[in-house]
Amino acid sequence: MTDVEIPLPAGFKAAGVHCGIKKDPQVLDLALFTSDLPCSSAGVFTTNLVQGAPVKVSRERVLRETSRGVVINSGNANACTGDRGITDAEWMTGLVASHLGCDDDDVFVCSTGVIGRFLPKDKLALGIPAVAAALADTPTAFRTAATGIMTTDTFPKLSTRVVTIGCQTVRISGVAKGAAMIAPNMATMLSVILTDATLSPMQADLMLRHAVDRSFNCISVAGHMSTSDTVLLLANGAAGAPLPTSEERMALQQQMDEVAAELAQAIIRDSEGADHEITIDVEGLQTREDAYRIAKAVAESPLVKTAITGADPNWGRIVSAVGYAGIRMAETDITLHLNGTLLFEAGVPVAFDGEAVSAAIRDNRAVHIRLSFPLGTEGVRFWTCDLTAEYVRLNADYTT
Amino acid sequence: MTDVEIPLPAGFKAAGVHCGIKKDPQVLDLALFTSDLPCSSAGVFTTNLVQGAPVKVSRERVLRETSRGVVINSGNANACTGDRGITDAEWMTGLVASHLGCDDDDVFVCSTGVIGRFLPKDKLALGIPAVAAALADTPTAFRTAATGIMTTDTFPKLSTRVVTIGCQTVRISGVAKGAAMIAPNMATMLSVILTDATLSPMQADLMLRHAVDRSFNCISVAGHMSTSDTVLLLANGAAGAPLPTSEERMALQQQMDEVAAELAQAIIRDSEGADHEITIDVEGLQTREDAYRIAKAVAESPLVKTAITGADPNWGRIVSAVGYAGIRMAETDITLHLNGTLLFEAGVPVAFDGEAVSAAIRDNRAVHIRLSFPLGTEGVRFWTCDLTAEYVRLNADYTT
Repeated sequence: MTDVEIPLPAGFKAAGVHCGIKKDPQVLDLALFTSDLPCSSAGVFTTNLVQGAPVKVSRERVLRETSRGVVINSGNANACTGDRGITDAEWMTGLVASHLGCDDDDVFVCSTGVIGRFLPKDKLALGIPAVAAALADTPTAFRTAATGIMTTDTFPKLSTRVVTIGCQTVRISGVAKGAAMIAPNMATMLSVILTDATLSPMQADLMLRHAVDRSFNCISVAGHMSTSDTVLLLANGAAGAPLPTSEERMALQQQMDEVAAELAQAIIRDSEGADHEITIDVEGLQTREDAYRIAKAVAESPLVKTAITGADPNWGRIVSAVGYAGIRMAETDITLHLNGTLLFEAGVPVAFDGEAVSAAIRDNRAVHIRLSFPLGTEGVRFWTCDLTAEYVRLNADYTT
Repeated sequence: MTDVEIPLPAGFKAAGVHCGIKKDPQVLDLALFTSDLPCSSAGVFTTNLVQGAPVKVSRERVLRETSRGVVINSGNANACTGDRGITDAEWMTGLVASHLGCDDDDVFVCSTGVIGRFLPKDKLALGIPAVAAALADTPTAFRTAATGIMTTDTFPKLSTRVVTIGCQTVRISGVAKGAAMIAPNMATMLSVILTDATLSPMQADLMLRHAVDRSFNCISVAGHMSTSDTVLLLANGAAGAPLPTSEERMALQQQMDEVAAELAQAIIRDSEGADHEITIDVEGLQTREDAYRIAKAVAESPLVKTAITGADPNWGRIVSAVGYAGIRMAETDITLHLNGTLLFEAGVPVAFDGEAVSAAIRDNRAVHIRLSFPLGTEGVRFWTCDLTAEYVRLNADYTT
């Protein structure tokens, strides 16, 4: 994913620079994404009641037809900074708006990094004009912007898909940052998804929520929700395609889901402390919500995670996590496969080659947990990583 | 707690033996607690939908006036063992009942240990008569029984209190097992509380739930609920005291709460992989439930736990865990003290001596997190431990 050129959709520009929020002059800390045309916009934000100032500012600015861009700094989350934080976040959007010639309200802002410190406005006052001057519509500019939003990430995360609407090729491209809940910033998850499709704000909102429900909401690294999580969608219509028909909208949705899922999986992959990437498929429930709660309980169990770390096919930990997910079922409804091997069938432990299953976990970074139920037809796919001593070391050794 | 003699209440006997479920002949694996008189009984059981057979059997036998004892084996949980597991659990109580001369239904059974294996009935067929023959009313017998229920515990857990009812001294004594979610058995938590007070089954039930809500339900080690968690209360009236007045019941309740809390704290203390015992006080909420949800969110956050491991006064992790607890509040409602030092006041970070706070964490096993709110008068006290690389090693290295 990091080696191929990811283009921006038509009519979008991006840039990333170092402005001095982070000390190392080699490390970028400011990014800008803009559209030449006004965009329909939508956003999904953290449900944490403690929210960073940029979340408070940006969430008031979604669902409009005149959005023009997103400014993102890394290295400072501008969270727990009170009224001054709000004023600072608004000030950032004002600087960008003056360069774009739009209203302040047409610009979104995100910040990620340490909590509880005020933004260095002097650095941003120079940085924002610089990043605006660097705007370009090239894949290189897009990758540079994706790098500018990184904190503990070890690689920039980009994804793109195309789909045909009317007779036009429409592109969806996204960037994300986030890495397995490594300090200092609780792995705030940010993503910006851009498309040159023509969408109403309501369509954009529905499509973004659908995609987020199947991607960023289906990853769990430490069960600790950040104060700044934000996913934004901007649709500028620059492809010249008409509003999609319902069939085209389904095709567009599928591609948008894939972009979001690829970005979410990249966050799981970028987990310094983890040895395994775990995919959890839960199927055969009455509702997707039921499947989701089961997948989340399994994904967030430290005992399941450490069993995978230890290459231990410990089905008891997985089955008991299912049991406390709070979904009404009988023990005999549970069937479990681990990397394709049946371990537990309709409530009964099955004889299996423990050595072989253990070796398969140990020798592969990818682990697949499949939980099947006879209760319905709904399911969910969820991603997480294991819990290693290295994870603890990384999180314990960081000092505020 | 392990060095003082803990007496049984009047009219109770206990014993512990090795019967061969565990390999090491030096390690006890079977315990029995009996009453000479019929008891009012109550129980609180795991809410995990996947339940060990003994839980299914015992939960049908609470709230009666004729209970006579509890048989507990360690080394095998008799969970995920289907109908045969149920039959085996009932068979255990039948053997005990024949020794006591009571109905099978008057005997409770608990099992703790590995999941998914059938009980070794041949060993129990010899062990149960042996443990019945060893019954005694001495503190030594009580301690031996407390040792017989241990799995990964490193010390037996006992607690006792007395209170005056009428003109009689009434005693409450309890045992527990459980240790910081170390494999192999998800640290099943078992406790038996015995009292020679006179209580109706309904009174016993109310009092036990009150005590459990303030003790075993307020500890969290890995957020992974076992399939076998059980707390039983037996009240035999042997002290000769009358049914308590409402005032006396409050005094009795307080002492029972203390017994349960002392046992719960002992489980936190007995966490091989942990460096710190963390007490979380949450106060000033509208309801105890609100306070509980906040305390639990903080206690179960791996990022909070690893911050304590790293002696890092990282208030951002604590405050953001409060934020996702799901309680309606404003950021400005949150005030945080760590080991008595104010770090965050009414939503605003406070300047503090980071070195000193960090040193105080590093140099003490006990850590105190206090979260204050201006929303009401309800609160809760919660206990947990930190998350260390050693914890991960212990949980990853165990293989089923």
